[in-house]
Amino acid sequence: MKTLRYLAAVAVSVSVCVAVHGAGAATVEQWGMFELALAGPTNGNPFTDVHLSARFVKDFDVVEVRGFYDGGGVYRVRFMPPKQGVWRYTTISSAPELDGKTGELTATPPGPGNHGPVRVTNTYHFAYADGTPFRPVGTTLYAWIHQPEALQEQTLKTLAAAPFNKVRMCVFPKRYQWNTNEPALYPFEGRPGNFDFSRFNPGFFRHLERRILDLQKLGIEADLILFHPYDEGHWGFDRMTPTEDDRYLRYIVARLAAFRNVWWSLANEWDFMEKKTEADFVRFGELVSREDPYGHLLSVHNGYVLFNYTLPWITHASIQNGAAVESALSAELYRGAYRKPVVYDEIKYEGDIPKRWGNISAEELVFRFWNATVAGTYATHGETYLSPDDVLWWSKGGVLKGQSPARLAFLRRVLEDAPPEGIEPIDKWQNPEFGGRIPDYYLVYFGKAAPTEWEFKLPRRRQGPAEGMRYTAEVLDTWDMTITPVPGTFTLVRQSEYFFADKAGRKIQLPGKPYIALRIKRVKE
Amino acid sequence: MKTLRYLAAVAVSVSVCVAVHGAGAATVEQWGMFELALAGPTNGNPFTDVHLSARFVKDFDVVEVRGFYDGGGVYRVRFMPPKQGVWRYTTISSAPELDGKTGELTATPPGPGNHGPVRVTNTYHFAYADGTPFRPVGTTLYAWIHQPEALQEQTLKTLAAAPFNKVRMCVFPKRYQWNTNEPALYPFEGRPGNFDFSRFNPGFFRHLERRILDLQKLGIEADLILFHPYDEGHWGFDRMTPTEDDRYLRYIVARLAAFRNVWWSLANEWDFMEKKTEADFVRFGELVSREDPYGHLLSVHNGYVLFNYTLPWITHASIQNGAAVESALSAELYRGAYRKPVVYDEIKYEGDIPKRWGNISAEELVFRFWNATVAGTYATHGETYLSPDDVLWWSKGGVLKGQSPARLAFLRRVLEDAPPEGIEPIDKWQNPEFGGRIPDYYLVYFGKAAPTEWEFKLPRRRQGPAEGMRYTAEVLDTWDMTITPVPGTFTLVRQSEYFFADKAGRKIQLPGKPYIALRIKRVKE
Repeated sequence: MKTLRYLAAVAVSVSVCVAVHGAGAATVEQWGMFELALAGPTNGNPFTDVHLSARFVKDFDVVEVRGFYDGGGVYRVRFMPPKQGVWRYTTISSAPELDGKTGELTATPPGPGNHGPVRVTNTYHFAYADGTPFRPVGTTLYAWIHQPEALQEQTLKTLAAAPFNKVRMCVFPKRYQWNTNEPALYPFEGRPGNFDFSRFNPGFFRHLERRILDLQKLGIEADLILFHPYDEGHWGFDRMTPTEDDRYLRYIVARLAAFRNVWWSLANEWDFMEKKTEADFVRFGELVSREDPYGHLLSVHNGYVLFNYTLPWITHASIQNGAAVESALSAELYRGAYRKPVVYDEIKYEGDIPKRWGNISAEELVFRFWNATVAGTYATHGETYLSPDDVLWWSKGGVLKGQSPARLAFLRRVLEDAPPEGIEPIDKWQNPEFGGRIPDYYLVYFGKAAPTEWEFKLPRRRQGPAEGMRYTAEVLDTWDMTITPVPGTFTLVRQSEYFFADKAGRKIQLPGKPYIALRIKRVKE
Repeated sequence: MKTLRYLAAVAVSVSVCVAVHGAGAATVEQWGMFELALAGPTNGNPFTDVHLSARFVKDFDVVEVRGFYDGGGVYRVRFMPPKQGVWRYTTISSAPELDGKTGELTATPPGPGNHGPVRVTNTYHFAYADGTPFRPVGTTLYAWIHQPEALQEQTLKTLAAAPFNKVRMCVFPKRYQWNTNEPALYPFEGRPGNFDFSRFNPGFFRHLERRILDLQKLGIEADLILFHPYDEGHWGFDRMTPTEDDRYLRYIVARLAAFRNVWWSLANEWDFMEKKTEADFVRFGELVSREDPYGHLLSVHNGYVLFNYTLPWITHASIQNGAAVESALSAELYRGAYRKPVVYDEIKYEGDIPKRWGNISAEELVFRFWNATVAGTYATHGETYLSPDDVLWWSKGGVLKGQSPARLAFLRRVLEDAPPEGIEPIDKWQNPEFGGRIPDYYLVYFGKAAPTEWEFKLPRRRQGPAEGMRYTAEVLDTWDMTITPVPGTFTLVRQSEYFFADKAGRKIQLPGKPYIALRIKRVKE
C-alpha cells in the first residue's frame, strides 16, 4: 500500500483519523470521522468505473458505506462510528486492488464539544445523538464558500461571535442579483460552458469539507443545500440529467455523510427549479436516505409550493413562509399537519433591498422568531442590507450589520434555559401566546401588543397544571434584552373552565412596550 | 321468488327502483338507486351468518357491491349506476337461495336535480359527477334524526329555506350537554345497557335512509358521521370491539353507498374518543374506502389533534379549527400542506352558550367564512343559541335564530357566480385578501378593516394578468348583503414588481365599514 496525500485541513482536526491501510490500529472518537485511504486504478474514469464500499462491523451493528474517488489515484472510505468500541471493516470493490481490504479501528468516547449528529426528538424537536438538546437558531450563507478566501475567513470570524448554530449553505455556486462573481472552484472538471458532469473536482469538495469542519469547530450545523435554482443554465448544475444528478448525490453523500454536523437540504426553493419535477426530488430524497447510513436530517425547502413533508424519509419540514410566523397561531398550523419538527427556514430577511422578501426590520424578524418559538417551531435568520461591494450576509457572509443577531442571542439564551424536551404550544388555537411545558415552564409572548399589566393566568389543560401550584415570573424584554424578576410567587386557583389565576388575583406590571414576554416557572416544592 | 315488502318511504322516491327478483326489466336513473330485494334465510343470525354480494356489469365496467340483511327474511342489494345503459347483475351468496340470481337494469339519463355524487376536482374543490360545481356551505345537525318526529320535520322545513347544501349528522345518537333525550330508535337490537351489537335494527337504518333522501330532495349532501365521542359508554356505540366496529361499517356502507348524496365522516373529534386509537381510524378508513364501490367523499374530523389527511384514502381535510379561519392567511396554510380540499367543518358556532367554542357572533362566523373563501377553502356553519327547550340548531335542528344564515345565502350566491373551477388564493403569503382565478375573476376581502378607499391593483403573477386588461368592479357589503357596481372600467398598467394598477390611477370609494369585499371581473374584449 502506497503512502498517500492527506487531506489538507481535515487531517489536523481532532475528529478525523486518516488510516493508511496496513498502518496499524486506528482510534477515532465516536461520531468522529475515520477515513481509509487506498490507492486504486487511475485509468478510464475512476468516478464512474470503480465501485468501492466498506462494511464496518461491531457485534450486531453493521454499517455499509460507499467510498469515493478523490483524484490522484486515491480512493477513500469515510466512517462515522455511531458507537464506541472496536469496529472491523472489509472493503468491497470492483477493482481488485481495492477489494477485500480489512482492518479495525477503535471508537473512543467523544471529546469535548462532540455530541454527535442532530436527530429529531419528541416529535417536534431536535437533540444531538448524545441527548443534548439542539435548538436551531439558524442563518443563511448560501454562497459563502464560493467567495474570496479572505471573505470566507471574515465570515467564520463573524460566526464565532454570532448566535447561530445552523447555517444554510449551497454546495453549488449561486448566480443571482448581488451574486454575479464566479467562484474559484467548481464541483466538476471543466469551466462554465464546458463541464464534464461525470468527473468531479476533488479540490472543490475538499474545500467544502474544510468549511464544514470550520463550522463544526464553531458548534454550527451545516444545512447543506444540494440543488438550487440560482443557476438557470449558467453553469448547468440545475439541469443535469437524472444519471448525473444521482451520481452527484451518491458522491456527495459518500464524501460527507461521515461529517456529524451535516444536514441534507435537497433544495432551496425546489419548485423554482424549472428543469426539475417533484418526482425528481422524491427520487433524490429516497436516494440520499438510502445512501446515508447515519440518517442525517433531511428536508426540502420550498418557494411557493410546499413539499410533501409527510413523506417518510423527510425528517423535518424546512419551510419558506414569512407570513406563517407573523403570528404564533399560524406558526403552529404546519406543525400539527406534519407532526414533524417545523423549521421556518426563510421568513424574509432583515435588510433594505428592494424585494418584498428582503426588507423587513430587525424588530419584525425577532418578532417572527418569538412567534415561532412559542408555537413550538424554529426559525432562521438572514440579512440583506445593501452594500456597495454587493456583499450581503444573506448569501456571501462577511460581517453582520443588523440589529437582530443580538436579540437572537438573547432568545438562544432563553431557549437554553428552557426545558430540554422543547417548547410546546400550550393551547394552540385558543391562547397561542402560551408556549412551554405543562406544568413547569411557560413563555407568554405579547408580540406587538403593549400591555401595561397582565393578570396572572395559566390555561387549564388535561395534563395540568393543578390548583395550589406555585410559580415565579420574570418579565423579558425581547428587544432590550432584559430579564426582570417579578417579586413573590403566584399560587393557582381555578378561575374558569379554561384558566387558572393567582389565588390573590395578582397582576404583573408590564412596561407598555411591544415585544415583551413573560417567563413563568413552577416553584419546586 | 316471494313477493316482498317494499321500503316505506324509499320506494316512492323517483331515485329508487326496488326490483323484486324475476319481476322483469327495471329502469333507474344514472346515480339513482337500484335495489334488489331477495328472500333468504331467517335462522341463526342473518346479519353475521350470510354473505351476499352482487356483481353489476356493463361492457368493461364491473361494480361489486355488498348486500345486507334488512330484517323479516329480506336481503337487499343496492346499486347506484355510475353510467347509463344496461347493467347485468349476478348475486353471490353463502346462502343457496340468494346465490346466482341474475337480472338486468337500464340506467337512464339523470332527472332534474340529479347531478350524481360529489367528487374532488381541481385538487382543492368539489364538483358533482356530471361536472356541476359543488361549493360546500354546510351546517351541523349532529343529532337531528334522533329528535322527535315533529322536530325533524321542522328542521327539514327550515333547511328548505336555508342556504346550506351540506349537513354534518351523526349516525349514532348523541349524549352531551343540551342533548340528554333518548332517541326513539337505536341502531342495534336491545336497549341501553343491553345492546346486541351483532344484530342491527333495520328500522333505525330505514329511518336514517329516509332522512338522507329528504336531504337529497333538498339538494343537500349528508356528511354522515360514523363514530363520535358523545356517548362515553352510555350506549356503548363508542366502545364496541374491532369486530363490531368493522361489521357496523360494512353494514352501513352496504346500506348507504348507493345514496348519491352521502359523504363519509369517520368521526367527529376522532381524538376525543377515548377507546379508539388513530390506528383504528386508519383501519376504518381503509375498510370504508374498500367497501364503497363509488368512492364517496371520505374524511375524519378532529378535536385537538389533526388527522393525517395525506393518507391516500382521505379525499379532503375535514378540519375543526376556528382559529385558522380568523385570517385568510392562516386559512390557506393547511391547503398547501395537504394538497386536498380543505373544509373547515367546525369554526366555532354562532350562539351564546357558555363555551368558548359556542359563542361567537354572527359577524364573526360570516367573517370566517369569507376568510375561508378567499383562501380557496370552505367552512361550515353551526348555531348554538340557548333555548329553554334545549333545542339548539347545532345538534338538534328546529329553527334558525341567528343572523349568519342570510349572509351565508349571500355568500353562496357570490360563489355560484364565481368561476366554476373554484376560487384560488392569488398571492397566498403576501396578499391573502385576494382570491379568485387569474386573470378573469378576483375577490378582495377586507375583513375587519374599514377602508374608505382602495387603489385598484391586482397582483402580478406568472400566470397573469397582463398590461392592458380591463376590469369592472363591484363593492360587496357581505353583512348588509348589497352589491354596488363601481362605474367604469379599470385598465391594468404595471405599477411595481408585484402589482398592476389602473392606468388612470383610479381608486374605488368604500363605505368605511368592516366586512366589505370587492368583486373584480375581467371585461371580455
